[in-house]
Parts: sequence; structure tokens; C-alpha cells
Amino acid sequence: MISTALADEFRSIVGERWFLDTPEDLATYSYDGFLPEFKPDGVIIPGSTDEISRIMRLANRERINIIPRGAGTNICGSSVARKGGIIIAFHRMNRILEIDPENRCAVVQPGVVNADLQKEVGRYGLMYPPDPASMFVSTIGGNVALNAGGPRGVKYGVTRDYLLGLEAVLPSGEVIKTGGKTLKNVSGYDLTRLMCGSEGTLGIFSEITVRLIPLPPAKATLQAVFSDLDDAATTVSAIIGSGIVPTTLELMDRVVLGVIRDYGGAEFSKEAEALLLIEVDGEEVLVEVQGKRIERFCKERGAIEVERTNSPEEAERLWQARRTAFGAVARLRPNCIVEDATVPVKRLSDIIRKIVELADKYQLKIAILAHAGDGNLHPLIMTDLRDREEMARIDKALEELYEAAIAMGGTLSGEHGIGIAKARFMTMEFSQSAIEIMRGIKRVFDPNNILNPGSFL
Amino acid sequence: MISTALADEFRSIVGERWFLDTPEDLATYSYDGFLPEFKPDGVIIPGSTDEISRIMRLANRERINIIPRGAGTNICGSSVARKGGIIIAFHRMNRILEIDPENRCAVVQPGVVNADLQKEVGRYGLMYPPDPASMFVSTIGGNVALNAGGPRGVKYGVTRDYLLGLEAVLPSGEVIKTGGKTLKNVSGYDLTRLMCGSEGTLGIFSEITVRLIPLPPAKATLQAVFSDLDDAATTVSAIIGSGIVPTTLELMDRVVLGVIRDYGGAEFSKEAEALLLIEVDGEEVLVEVQGKRIERFCKERGAIEVERTNSPEEAERLWQARRTAFGAVARLRPNCIVEDATVPVKRLSDIIRKIVELADKYQLKIAILAHAGDGNLHPLIMTDLRDREEMARIDKALEELYEAAIAMGGTLSGEHGIGIAKARFMTMEFSQSAIEIMRGIKRVFDPNNILNPGSFL
Repeated sequence: MISTALADEFRSIVGERWFLDTPEDLATYSYDGFLPEFKPDGVIIPGSTDEISRIMRLANRERINIIPRGAGTNICGSSVARKGGIIIAFHRMNRILEIDPENRCAVVQPGVVNADLQKEVGRYGLMYPPDPASMFVSTIGGNVALNAGGPRGVKYGVTRDYLLGLEAVLPSGEVIKTGGKTLKNVSGYDLTRLMCGSEGTLGIFSEITVRLIPLPPAKATLQAVFSDLDDAATTVSAIIGSGIVPTTLELMDRVVLGVIRDYGGAEFSKEAEALLLIEVDGEEVLVEVQGKRIERFCKERGAIEVERTNSPEEAERLWQARRTAFGAVARLRPNCIVEDATVPVKRLSDIIRKIVELADKYQLKIAILAHAGDGNLHPLIMTDLRDREEMARIDKALEELYEAAIAMGGTLSGEHGIGIAKARFMTMEFSQSAIEIMRGIKRVFDPNNILNPGSFL
Repeated sequence: MISTALADEFRSIVGERWFLDTPEDLATYSYDGFLPEFKPDGVIIPGSTDEISRIMRLANRERINIIPRGAGTNICGSSVARKGGIIIAFHRMNRILEIDPENRCAVVQPGVVNADLQKEVGRYGLMYPPDPASMFVSTIGGNVALNAGGPRGVKYGVTRDYLLGLEAVLPSGEVIKTGGKTLKNVSGYDLTRLMCGSEGTLGIFSEITVRLIPLPPAKATLQAVFSDLDDAATTVSAIIGSGIVPTTLELMDRVVLGVIRDYGGAEFSKEAEALLLIEVDGEEVLVEVQGKRIERFCKERGAIEVERTNSPEEAERLWQARRTAFGAVARLRPNCIVEDATVPVKRLSDIIRKIVELADKYQLKIAILAHAGDGNLHPLIMTDLRDREEMARIDKALEELYEAAIAMGGTLSGEHGIGIAKARFMTMEFSQSAIEIMRGIKRVFDPNNILNPGSFL
């Protein structure tokens, strides 16, 4: 709890309207995509870099925790006030400040919604590739804080690969600028990428410069249904091994397909054990050649149905199943935990086998969605958070899952972040020395530990 | 100077043969591509991670400076013992440990030469894109330390974009591992990219995992000669603006062309004021379409000669001029200083105009080579380091050049690094707060400041 006098000081920085502390407001900001609730002491919504700076100076002086939050769609608990404090939100700072087609970049405020940026740059024949599933609500600031990925990652990489520069407010209130509009920049330590994926623990982004690329003129979409999961996994390897770099290469397992079918999201053959949704984009001639080649790979490796289309409407219909998946799975039980185990792509079938084995061992209902092209898996665990006994089994299964992923040369998180959700697993991936280095870096930026404390470190 | 007893301790770690301290050896390691000389107190050549770790533990205990050095081709003075100490070199650790075609990555020791890696991965139909001009001698360890770029950067990016993971020895002797074989990894702070480009000041790389991409099946090379530099610059903008992403887009100015002509490197029309060397790569159909389109752009914008070829032999002939350029320019005067100003690509003609103006103002002979596609310029200043009066003029010109580049939204270094060469300009690009953050990070990794001290911080 903060005192009324202090609340008034915060209010005086942003104006009465932009400091919220009614019980309803606090409840709204008490959770993110990760489920446990932590009620903040207030919510502040700055309108400028200067206001952020003044907020931080006050918070630093009074040792008040500040937790930056985009749209709160992250599913690792990296935008909640676990140790109390004030949530700082960015819906007032949601302007695209500049689209610079000649230099192929854009400068945005942190609160710009990803899909809005995509749409605006599309008018210039440009594309901002990172496409997290949350893109219609999640913000660029949040995307940078979490280093968000998405289905297009297999060809285009993740948020980090498109981040050129930052203006960031340090916990002290000081404003630093890193990077800029140039594609190449090797001056000093790479603070830009250090802050990318730092989950709101190092600084608050007040301005973000991102790289854009030419919008690919053509696209082909393929859907291939397999009666054997291993055939689908082999096809993934064949495509990747052939030198084709697909834009997306999504895999859904039998459980997901069953749920989508029941939900009325799409029709699949009863023998369907796995589905691949594949896209290639680029120049028209290229897309034609690669689309046909992928179709052949699928058929040669036992696909029982293959559809290929260049029509945007048909493609939309094929994507419908993928988009329905999460909602369809989530409605089966009160809660759905989305995991993020990631392995080198050739271990894909091994990690899928491990997940199936864990579901059996711990009597859990797990569906598998995967960005198969880059080894990034999303096991969806259907559960009920109130069932403590089942939650205890899930905890054990997750521990085994991440141990297996790390043993295969993988990582705790491909694109969702660590946050509260996976803090306890950090020592699986990092030695004590590496964690101490991270803690030291945190102290350099934030000596009083006021910025999103209680997160992954 | 280090004591005989201490030298013996270092010797006992690596074996008699691998600790050098004869005057000849010290002279060999007293300079890098940046010219001033600093004699080290010894040179040590470890054969394993464990030996590096023992070296660092001893150095840390005795407060002996250690300066990591690849092939010493960097031109910013980031691999010399400016404050005394021992050079650590890696020619014993030059093995490619693994090429993993299914996961499209390779694991190498730091001393592997860039071109050797390129050649080996080529056998698997794969490519390691970063191609610094020094690639036939420079090492992957050095490339990572400097975050090296190269002509292909305009399409493929720089070393950072292909770095997946590191094993690094900290000044304390502790070994940390960061990243790995997965394309996506967002666990904890991004120590991998923080160490990339850190110029040997944070840790010593003992194992490096890099990302590979499919080798493009076809390539087209074009050379276009212009009688007006502005026409060449407009053509660069037209190509970039058209949505084509060329593999390389190199520009040479009149001075460079004149020198190459005199040197017998190639023939150009007497009216030649600028030359563009352009490559596109990818699927054959694509290369054909894009090659023709670029040829048309060049002709429409006043090119007086255009050659286009798909033949590797012809391409080699066209590259000959670019490759001759540096050597040809360098022989005109005793020394040649290569600068690295980088601006957003649409300011290309502005910065070129500024360089021409500075050459005139300070009576300097400056030739211009540019990776024009990404705004990364290499002004070559022909001089004689012994001429103090001229060196003073160069100092002033450089200060104005970098002030102008920063004012245009550019950076001190696109791909060469800061090192000793540009340490004094850091405050042009970074605020005191940002520099303090960098110093703080340095202290976290290296509290006794023994790793390449006297470099850019």
C-alpha cells in the first residue's frame, strides 16, 4: 500500500485521470496471461517520456516498485505486481511517430498495437515480421520486453531481429538512447539487445525503432494431414533439409485436431493424427516452385490429404483451424496452461514423444501445437487451477519436460519468456556464475530493485 | 613487465612452447590493423577451455591484463596491450567441432578462420553469411568479439545475426554457457548478444555456435559505371526502394576508380565518377528477374556502362576491382586509415558530400568505398603516420565526420568497432548515463579490469 500523499504525488505527474486505484481498476491489472493474481497498489498511465522519467525518479526515491505492462498478454507472469507496487501502462503512448520507407524503419511509442503497425506499414509495401498470436492486442513495447516470436519466426526470426534502437528510461529517471536507424551499429555494448527480452526489469521503453522489410508480393499456403505423427515430423525435416525456408511451419497433433473437429472449427479425416500448416512467401515465381516442391514432399511422406492455394480467402480458411485451436482447447477445462519448450529442430519428434509420455505418466490432458520449423513447441495443458492435486502433478510433469528439453540442447523458453512461471527452472539452463552475472547486470541498471522485482531473477 | 616466476606459472599451464616472450614474438603481437604499437609482456596460446580458465584464474589473482586476439585484423586497436599485459591467441583452438546440417548450425572453436568455416559448410549446401573483407585470415572468435559485418550485410545482416550460443570464460576463470542450437531462445538476459561486439572486454569465447542458412542456388552480378556520383546514389535508393534486397551493393568513388585504373586492376571509362557493384542471390528464377530489373534501374538513372552476368568467372573478374581497391589505395602513401561512418541509407549522398568537403577543407586525400546498401561507408584516408601536422588535420576531419554522421542519425561504427581508435568519440553517440551503464556492466564481468583494459570504455 502506498500513502495518500504519495499517490497524490504520482497523480500530480500524470494528471488526476491517469492514476487509477479503485478496487475495480486494481483487479483489472492484477493478472496477465499467466494466471495467479497479484493486486497492485495503483496503475499509472504516462503520456510522455518526461512523465515516465518523473514517475521513475519519484518511485526510486520512495522505493516503490514499478511494473511495466503492455497489453498484459504475456503468459509467464512478467507484468504483474508480485511484490506489490504500481503498474505502469502505455495506452496513452500509442502513436506511430514515423514510418520511414527509404530507410525501411519505423519509430513508435511503446503502446502501439503490433497489428496496427503491421497494417500501417503495409500501406508502404513494407512488413514488420514478428507476429505473436497476441498481435491484435499486444503492444510493441510488450513485444520488445518479451522478445516475442510467432509463426513467421522460422523464416523471419523474432522481435530482436527487427529492433534497431531504443529510448529507455532507467529506474533513476535518466533517459538513454541506444541504436538508431542504421542497419549496422556496433558502437559500445549492445544495450539494445540486452534490454530486448529483459521482461521489464532493466528499463522502460519510451520510444522504439524497428526495422521493416519489403512486403513479399506472393504467398502460398498448404495444409497436409497425416495418419502418423512421425510422418509429419519426417516431412518437417525434409522441408527444412531441402533448403526451402518456409514462412511458417505449424504442427497440430491428434488432440488438437479432435478438439477443433468437435468445436466445428474444421473437418478432418478420422485417421488424422497430425496436421502441418505451411506457408511460403516471396516473389511469385519462387512461391510457385517452392509450393509445388513442398506438396510433393508431403505426398511422398504419406500425407493422406494435401491442399495448396495461392488465394488469400482459401488461405484464411486453412488458418481458421490453427486460430480456433487455442480457444477450442481452452474451453474443455476451466484453465489451459501454455508451455514453451524449445529444442533443436531435429529433436522435434523426441520432445513430442516425451510430452505424450508425460501426459500418460501424470494422467494429464495435453494437446500439442508447435512452430515445428524452429523446434518451438506449445504443449497446452488442460486443467483446473483450483485442483491442487492435479496442479502438483503438472508441476512434476513440467519439471521433467524442461529437464528433457535442456538435455536435448533446448531452452526453457523459445518465445514466451521466463517471468514468475519459470523462474524456478533457471538453474537447469544456467550455471550459478551466469545467473550471478545477470543479477549483477540488474543491479547496474536498477540498484534499488524497484523495476518488476520478483520476476525471473 | 611480469616476473620470471609468474611467466613460469603461465608456462606451466600451456606448456613451454605456447608461452612466447622473445623480443621478436612481442613485436609481432604489438599491433593490429589499427596502427600504433603497444608491446605486450607475453603471448599465451591455450589449447582448451580448461587452459583458458586456468590462465584467467592466475591473471585475475595477480592482476595481469589479458588481451584476447584473433588474427589481429581489426582496425580499431581492440587487440593490443595498450596498458601492458599478455596477449591470448587462439591458433591452437582452430577446430570446427561440429557441422549439424539438420539443425543448420555449427559449433566451432574461436580460432577457426572465417573462410575455412564457409568452405566446410558449403560442402553441406549451407552458408555462413558474415563475410568481412578479412575473412581469409580473420577468425570466428575475433568476428564475434567485433560483431563483424561485410558486403553481404545488406541482405544477410552481421555476425550477431548468426550467433546462437557461446561458451565463455569469465575473468574469474569461471565458464558460462549462453544460448545453444535453437533458433529461438529468450531465457534470461541475452548474454550472447551482449558479449557479441564487446571487443574482448567481457569474457573469452572458448566455443561458438553459429547459425547457417541454405546456400543460395544462383547468383547474378552487375557492374554499373556512372559519370555522376549523384546518379549512382539515386540508383542505390531506387533499388532499395523497389523492394529488392540485394546481397551486396558496393559503391566506389572516382578516387578509388582512378587508383584501380592506375594500378592496372581494371579498365573504366575516363568519365567514370562512380561504380556500383551489385549482387543478388537466391533461386534461379528470382535472380533472373531481379538482375534484369536492377539493370533497368541503372540504365534509367544514367549509367554509362552496365554489365550483368550469371557466370562465376565473369563475376570474379568484376569483383577483382573491388578487391584491388584497398591495396591499390594503400600503396599511394605510407599509411591508409580506414574509417567506418554509418548513416541511415537515405543520407548516403549527404555523408559522401560531407567527406568530399572535409577532404578539401583539411587538404586530405580521401577515397570512398561504401557498402552503399546499408549506409556503411569506408572513407580511406591516405596519409603518413609520421607526419604529425597532417595527422592533426586528420584528427580534426574525423571529429567533424563523426559529428556529421551522428547528426544524420548515424553511428560511430557500422562494423569495425570502437577500440582505441574511436573511444574519444563515444560521448558523441552516448549520454553519460549510457556510458555509466556500460562501465557498470564491465565491472560485473570483470571487477579487476584485467580483460582488455584501455579499450573503448
